[in-house]
Amino acid sequence: MAIEKLNQIEVDGWECRKLPPQLTRRFDFGSYSQTRSFLDDLADLSEAIGNYPNLHFAKEFVTVTISAADDGPLQESEVEFATQVNDLAAKYS
Amino acid sequence: MAIEKLNQIEVDGWECRKLPPQLTRRFDFGSYSQTRSFLDDLADLSEAIGNYPNLHFAKEFVTVTISAADDGPLQESEVEFATQVNDLAAKYS
Repeated sequence: MAIEKLNQIEVDGWECRKLPPQLTRRFDFGSYSQTRSFLDDLADLSEAIGNYPNLHFAKEFVTVTISAADDGPLQESEVEFATQVNDLAAKYS
Repeated sequence: MAIEKLNQIEVDGWECRKLPPQLTRRFDFGSYSQTRSFLDDLADLSEAIGNYPNLHFAKEFVTVTISAADDGPLQESEVEFATQVNDLAAKYS
């Protein structure tokens, strides 16, 4: 189901951008090994559901940016993906 | 040895920026598994030498940005690191 009105979208901790429609969030970690472990978990999730978000990271942070498919409106699946990423990160907080 | 004059720096395939002093290069891959494998090799190298570059990636590209330590001039060690990253990527071309 496409989420027509972007301002309806709220995912805990994520910023919802409009042009282009994206969900973005920065995750901070206590060590590089935690960053690596989170990235591994996220890579497994990406391969499992076929969604490859834009990732920007260095030693102890990862910024995840989920874009709408084909620059359309954000879908329920993308909101679900953001929630799943929150669950992965919760292991480290 | 600090490399005072940035325009002396040339590393095959890398762009040398001045403010702040950085070396940056985009690497493209044929599959997500190659991207993951390159990122794993790079993470091992980062941990081995204690240099954690800024990485931006998605399914089939990785952009690596190596910054000078403490915003000083680029050092020989950073140029060497960029060369080592080239060697890692050569496995996939």
